[in-house]
Amino acid sequence: MKYAYLGPAGTFTESALLQVPGAPDAQRIPAANVNVALAMVRDGSVDAAMVPIENSVEGGVSATLDAIAQGQALQIVAEILVPITFVLATRPGIDSLDQIKLISTHGHAWAQCRLWAEANIPGAVFTPASSTAAAAVALIEDDPQHDAAICNPLVAEERGLNVLVRGVEDNIGAVTRFILVTRPGRIPAPSGVDKSTLILPLPEDRPGALMELLEQFTARGVNLSRIESRPTGEGLGQYFFSVDFEGHVADERVAAALSGLHRLSPELRFLGSYPAAQGVEPFVDTHNSDAAFSDARTWVQSLRDRL
Amino acid sequence: MKYAYLGPAGTFTESALLQVPGAPDAQRIPAANVNVALAMVRDGSVDAAMVPIENSVEGGVSATLDAIAQGQALQIVAEILVPITFVLATRPGIDSLDQIKLISTHGHAWAQCRLWAEANIPGAVFTPASSTAAAAVALIEDDPQHDAAICNPLVAEERGLNVLVRGVEDNIGAVTRFILVTRPGRIPAPSGVDKSTLILPLPEDRPGALMELLEQFTARGVNLSRIESRPTGEGLGQYFFSVDFEGHVADERVAAALSGLHRLSPELRFLGSYPAAQGVEPFVDTHNSDAAFSDARTWVQSLRDRL
Amino acid sequence: MKYAYLGPAGTFTESALLQVPGAPDAQRIPAANVNVALAMVRDGSVDAAMVPIENSVEGGVSATLDAIAQGQALQIVAEILVPITFVLATRPGIDSLDQIKLISTHGHAWAQCRLWAEANIPGAVFTPASSTAAAAVALIEDDPQHDAAICNPLVAEERGLNVLVRGVEDNIGAVTRFILVTRPGRIPAPSGVDKSTLILPLPEDRPGALMELLEQFTARGVNLSRIESRPTGEGLGQYFFSVDFEGHVADERVAAALSGLHRLSPELRFLGSYPAAQGVEPFVDTHNSDAAFSDARTWVQSLRDRL
Amino acid sequence: MKYAYLGPAGTFTESALLQVPGAPDAQRIPAANVNVALAMVRDGSVDAAMVPIENSVEGGVSATLDAIAQGQALQIVAEILVPITFVLATRPGIDSLDQIKLISTHGHAWAQCRLWAEANIPGAVFTPASSTAAAAVALIEDDPQHDAAICNPLVAEERGLNVLVRGVEDNIGAVTRFILVTRPGRIPAPSGVDKSTLILPLPEDRPGALMELLEQFTARGVNLSRIESRPTGEGLGQYFFSVDFEGHVADERVAAALSGLHRLSPELRFLGSYPAAQGVEPFVDTHNSDAAFSDARTWVQSLRDRL
Repeated sequence: MKYAYLGPAGTFTESALLQVPGAPDAQRIPAANVNVALAMVRDGSVDAAMVPIENSVEGGVSATLDAIAQGQALQIVAEILVPITFVLATRPGIDSLDQIKLISTHGHAWAQCRLWAEANIPGAVFTPASSTAAAAVALIEDDPQHDAAICNPLVAEERGLNVLVRGVEDNIGAVTRFILVTRPGRIPAPSGVDKSTLILPLPEDRPGALMELLEQFTARGVNLSRIESRPTGEGLGQYFFSVDFEGHVADERVAAALSGLHRLSPELRFLGSYPAAQGVEPFVDTHNSDAAFSDARTWVQSLRDRL
Repeated sequence: MKYAYLGPAGTFTESALLQVPGAPDAQRIPAANVNVALAMVRDGSVDAAMVPIENSVEGGVSATLDAIAQGQALQIVAEILVPITFVLATRPGIDSLDQIKLISTHGHAWAQCRLWAEANIPGAVFTPASSTAAAAVALIEDDPQHDAAICNPLVAEERGLNVLVRGVEDNIGAVTRFILVTRPGRIPAPSGVDKSTLILPLPEDRPGALMELLEQFTARGVNLSRIESRPTGEGLGQYFFSVDFEGHVADERVAAALSGLHRLSPELRFLGSYPAAQGVEPFVDTHNSDAAFSDARTWVQSLRDRL
Repeated sequence: MKYAYLGPAGTFTESALLQVPGAPDAQRIPAANVNVALAMVRDGSVDAAMVPIENSVEGGVSATLDAIAQGQALQIVAEILVPITFVLATRPGIDSLDQIKLISTHGHAWAQCRLWAEANIPGAVFTPASSTAAAAVALIEDDPQHDAAICNPLVAEERGLNVLVRGVEDNIGAVTRFILVTRPGRIPAPSGVDKSTLILPLPEDRPGALMELLEQFTARGVNLSRIESRPTGEGLGQYFFSVDFEGHVADERVAAALSGLHRLSPELRFLGSYPAAQGVEPFVDTHNSDAAFSDARTWVQSLRDRL
Repeated sequence: MKYAYLGPAGTFTESALLQVPGAPDAQRIPAANVNVALAMVRDGSVDAAMVPIENSVEGGVSATLDAIAQGQALQIVAEILVPITFVLATRPGIDSLDQIKLISTHGHAWAQCRLWAEANIPGAVFTPASSTAAAAVALIEDDPQHDAAICNPLVAEERGLNVLVRGVEDNIGAVTRFILVTRPGRIPAPSGVDKSTLILPLPEDRPGALMELLEQFTARGVNLSRIESRPTGEGLGQYFFSVDFEGHVADERVAAALSGLHRLSPELRFLGSYPAAQGVEPFVDTHNSDAAFSDARTWVQSLRDRL
């Protein structure tokens, strides 16, 4: 197996990938951005890619949401949750907060530590970096352009950086969700606690359209665990929805909801059913059980046999 | 073919039966009441029975609604509409309205002519009869107990009764709907303008239950043409619904609605799909077309093939 | 106080009336039918009328449902439940079931005892009477036309009739609901366990219309306890609905539901809020509480004050 | 009047502000980021701030959506649409595309021109800048770090930059929506074609919650023009919704929808009603007209007057 991931090495994405069985010993290729990582899956250069999809503070990762919504079909086969915590690393010679004049990190990381920074290093000027790891590694290059970086504890440890403060994130308990993406193929068997992901273009720009789509879920007792709107790029107010829901395509109620959604929005994309990283087996009403669907189908067929 | 019908001879029900191709030359057996007519179908004494189900003034015919909802399964294979108009017939010797002291007819007919009677024969005392035809025929028996009867024009003509006034009904344009009932068997092929009938027990006595059932129709664009509540006989507020809707079980959207209804109310009864006596081909949205259902099923199957 | 009731004396309706505080000592006028009883209220001849509205076996009493739905406005101020049980009374000289050749009672009572009659007096011929009491009283007149009558135990006792069998009803535990009707006036104060009654014309003959009306209730957590369809008399498939629901017009959620219903069906009729004969205080979600409505109104008003 | 705007000078945000009557002659203060601009409104340093809220390609501007959703209350009083087009400016001496090795611009601008860049300057390395204007202005500083910048035509013109290519954006016709934000105060009077904005926290993480909220709009025929999910920052799957809808709080149907939403989600925020930059007067069903609401209220009040 060969994996791509959103690089560089030492970021939270690599931490996520290392949780996949077999990945620590497999070939792992850092990609410059999500599009590149997914392109490597699409063209067969790698078997799978690990990319972030949702952050509990910043929300959906737009680049990922958009990249898997369009282009050649892809499939999600697993999700991994990684707790997000940051350290403040400094270049050699900087040993106290008041010495920090210039600080760098990725924009997303900066957004997650801004309040800490305003309170603790109010005079420091921020420069965006292409990744937290890039900002961190730059500290030990010759002639670093900044005094401090906010980064993943892993990279600080691996590179032996000077860590001044741990846990500089504003939201304690933040977590990022990553997905493992392959080309479409065999869908993982139901584990009992599963999740599925859909891309749902709004069929028309009319008031009830979103409600009609949601009704397909609620009518079968299928719980949404995430819904995010993304612009289609075709004008203000033109959206598609990226949706996660509880259950597996092998479940009858899920199959029925998908069927209803396909009628309303035939351009929808099914991105996969896979074991949920958290959660309990969903409660299913008697009338939404596999047996209820199967009995109903048998009954209707018995009527149609009389045609 | 052998037919039963709600008798006696000469009522609107026989008029309805005479519209069925072949019935004028077939054996026609009047039944004392709806239960008897349907029992003759159930036990095989006749091939089919014609009974009234809905009157545009008085509403659903409770005896029919209840009789087809319970007991051994039956099937509706045709519906017939008959315009309802009544004549005032008198016994020999009664030639003016002011001579009428005693009047008789069936309670339903009386209900439909009451305003006319109050205005034109205010002093006449009403005695209920077992049928309009019985009241009419009694006028020419020896020693009639009443002076006038309200009845079907057909029976007045056949028996050569003295007709004093025509069109004594309060609601001009009233119509009664009759159904032709058989044992369950082959369902008539779709005609393009079809109707189906269901008995829907309310699954539980809770606020949203009726809405959930109705939602199964609206979610597939299936129009109701009649909905009537009937008590189950198990206590105040315990109802089942008798429902007619546009479409045929051969239609995908109807099959899908039936399937959803079966899950919510597994004791439902399908009473048949049959050509509508009136109406136009229903408008069907693209997403409720047979093709949309078929495409959706194919798509979901293609996903499940990957399991 | 002067009361009318659906007569004659000795029927279940008088039993119901006798439960109204003060009624046993007030003037009680039997009326020939429901329309007459309600006309006496409308023209001021009496203060109130007791009429049946719902039978747990036969369903809604059409005459009452229709009479209060149309014409001059009326108000329901109380409901009374009466258990329905019948006795078989015979004329003098008839002491065993096999002597009974002719039997009479009101059609509704007959419907409720038919199975018993078919099993126990299969050869008896039924003649409809204008009331159970009329059938009963006729047994002790000179030259009775029938051998037995099915009637209310009360009338049998009061008139000293010969009772051959008690409890001849097919459905043990049947109950009839009666309503006390006045001209519109002061609405009874909330008792904590209240009920309200509405007449709801279907605004148009379109698929979602009934659902839109029902949604006004469910959106505020208002439970329906009865819903019945009645023809408007203007054609097949033209209905109004007679609806009982839990709660009082003094409740905010009820006022909000009524307001929404008025927008959809401006010809609706509010027939009153009154103490329920049975039941428990309804559960009300926080967001449907009086406080939630009041807070919401205050908030919206605070916004509109900025206009 | 004193205005803040998302700076630096010469960006699309300043173009938007210049469209506000009076703004070209007023004091205009560029702010380093959206939070700073809104803080200046909140603390009274300025009267209003212009900030971007939605981009037809990239979607909602998260910083703005989050900043107006939390903290001290604010009000939107106007919206401005600005077509988005970019130019490729180069530093002195760079006259052809193949000379460009290093390119800089704001990450959002880069995202909108990436395909053009991949096709036309595939070898160029991108460095993120804090704004398109900063990247542009840096071209004419001493010793520029990059060869080219993607920027607003306005800044290129004002600073006399060397423009190599115009219209380098991937999506022709892209537009950004800006809002003018003040402290809460008088709400602009209805113009006939108005829009309102709400922040709607999902009351609970349960399947039907979003549908219940949406139902408050559809039940009154209020059309949504934008709906976006944003994480609350309290965990994966915890969202609030930022919603724009057609209509003005002065409209009865809008007031009713707001009232219903307040009951379901009492922490909601009303951010204002203001003239829509585009659009036509919304179609309003008879039953959602101001008159229908007013009639309904009068009717319910007439009932409650009888308490």
